[in-house]
Amino acid sequence: MKLSKKNLQERSNQIYDVVIVGGGAGGLSAGIYLQRYRLSSLIVDKGKARSFWMQELHNYLGLPPDTPGKVLLQQGQKHYLSLDGDFLNGYVETVEDFGEAFAVKVKIGRQNSIYQVFRSKYLIVASGIIDNLPPLEDMENVFEYAGYNLHVCMVCDGYEMVDKQCGLFAGSETSITEMIFNLSWFTPYITVFTHGLFEVSQETKNQLREHGYRLVETPIKSFSGQNHQMTGVELIDGSTIQLETGLISMGSKYHNAYLQGINLDYQGNNLITDKMGRTSHPKIFAIGDLKVGLNQVVVAAGDGALAATQIWRDIRRATEPRRWTENLTVAV
Amino acid sequence: MKLSKKNLQERSNQIYDVVIVGGGAGGLSAGIYLQRYRLSSLIVDKGKARSFWMQELHNYLGLPPDTPGKVLLQQGQKHYLSLDGDFLNGYVETVEDFGEAFAVKVKIGRQNSIYQVFRSKYLIVASGIIDNLPPLEDMENVFEYAGYNLHVCMVCDGYEMVDKQCGLFAGSETSITEMIFNLSWFTPYITVFTHGLFEVSQETKNQLREHGYRLVETPIKSFSGQNHQMTGVELIDGSTIQLETGLISMGSKYHNAYLQGINLDYQGNNLITDKMGRTSHPKIFAIGDLKVGLNQVVVAAGDGALAATQIWRDIRRATEPRRWTENLTVAV
Repeated sequence: MKLSKKNLQERSNQIYDVVIVGGGAGGLSAGIYLQRYRLSSLIVDKGKARSFWMQELHNYLGLPPDTPGKVLLQQGQKHYLSLDGDFLNGYVETVEDFGEAFAVKVKIGRQNSIYQVFRSKYLIVASGIIDNLPPLEDMENVFEYAGYNLHVCMVCDGYEMVDKQCGLFAGSETSITEMIFNLSWFTPYITVFTHGLFEVSQETKNQLREHGYRLVETPIKSFSGQNHQMTGVELIDGSTIQLETGLISMGSKYHNAYLQGINLDYQGNNLITDKMGRTSHPKIFAIGDLKVGLNQVVVAAGDGALAATQIWRDIRRATEPRRWTENLTVAV
Repeated sequence: MKLSKKNLQERSNQIYDVVIVGGGAGGLSAGIYLQRYRLSSLIVDKGKARSFWMQELHNYLGLPPDTPGKVLLQQGQKHYLSLDGDFLNGYVETVEDFGEAFAVKVKIGRQNSIYQVFRSKYLIVASGIIDNLPPLEDMENVFEYAGYNLHVCMVCDGYEMVDKQCGLFAGSETSITEMIFNLSWFTPYITVFTHGLFEVSQETKNQLREHGYRLVETPIKSFSGQNHQMTGVELIDGSTIQLETGLISMGSKYHNAYLQGINLDYQGNNLITDKMGRTSHPKIFAIGDLKVGLNQVVVAAGDGALAATQIWRDIRRATEPRRWTENLTVAV
């Protein structure tokens, strides 16, 4: 059921089989599988998963390509609740590992916040990442276009950028060199913007010039456009640059601060897992964008099924098989 | 576009980037990703993927839990065709590896069949498995209930069997011992049917008896029921057994005969792959039920995204980046 400040107390003595941190595609898929395995689960969701921002999921099998990410999440939440899963809007502050159980401390409510600790045998970390956006004075102006034709994921939206005039909004020199040849697969009409945030080496400048790509180091004042369709940028010197689409590549914030007290193996910022999503801690699974792998909604959904299945296998193997007791009338 | 006997010739000189064998969940998801990566692909589908038989996909994130497998496949095919992928109903007979390209020989049409060879740089094998069913004299009687409340996948449908009187239709002693404690997680009211196909050892008989599970070795004459709801079985000796649900566990047929001529690493009948789905052959990827892993629609869909992405990375890295040529007017 949907938990709130009002009915929280009903769950204060419960030890869940699994607490899932994050109610995005991965967390919801894991929750659906866990409930169908007759395990108890709680999803704690801070809201606004990365896919929430996607206006059109173009590549999720089974949904029309203009389906908003939001609709997938709503359908998933409804599905999960129909299976009697617990869902709570809240922010996980800390996780402590007491061996027999995890203690998950959740902040509930932005105002007049209360704190509640939930306990579980397993933990699925599915809280994902969120993309850094160009820091403008008027951030509303960025939100106006982000997720429409100002994209954050090339694998998701490269196809929408084919042969269009594209701004690459980079957060570091590395993000230029890592992205530029991926992006040029889709369109060669690339203007790189540094927003004045970092210096570009002569080597990279030469590389851009050789391929005809442009480089703009003057900071951006605002994006131009209407009806969520970005048509270019205005720079702080008053000049304007026409664009048809854009890709923001300024790094990501990893929603994993609550894991600080726990020793886990990472590759860069990403958790290392086995094929079923198990991290270096036998009772912590990582799925979706927090783990090493491809950041895609359909992959996160598959990850959820795998992690839930492995947890079920663990728990089932440690449980005595049920016997047929004769409280059922069977005609043989 | 949809290929048929009539328009096949248009593709006779083409070398596809990828031929995908199988138009189930994995193949369609791979096709959608490949087309969006601006790669050319052909899906060859023999029809009736395993998910085609599922009356309700209970655990696919984003779709209502009563969505038939068929609807997912139809939506996926429409999506793929909208991205200009080629789709052909046909049966892949052989694959030959000529180094530079694969030659995929396809039989088209069950009657007045014709044969056509398609060429591709990469191959995705996504042709899956199909479950063996109890061999009755009247197979129509089995099809009447299979996919409704006579299930073939415990992970998919265990939840639907909770605490119900369940028939376990086993194909071998191993399938009893492998399944019985998984199934008893969902329901302890289990009657095992051997259909007279094999002997059961005293050890297994004792194990079943200790847990109160029943064993029926008399062959089945037919399933009883109405409106696709199986209510029991009639045995050849005229006796009847009442059931509320059933699980068929008689092994699977692997649709992989076309791979016979190619040396690949297997674990049992399943292809061994890396995390992106690459087999021991660098240009052959395996996804879905043919590979080692969990046989689930959402996992197969994720697999398709991974394999397509890795193939794109391979091809892109071997391709010169596109330059900005000045056939576009840009106002800077």
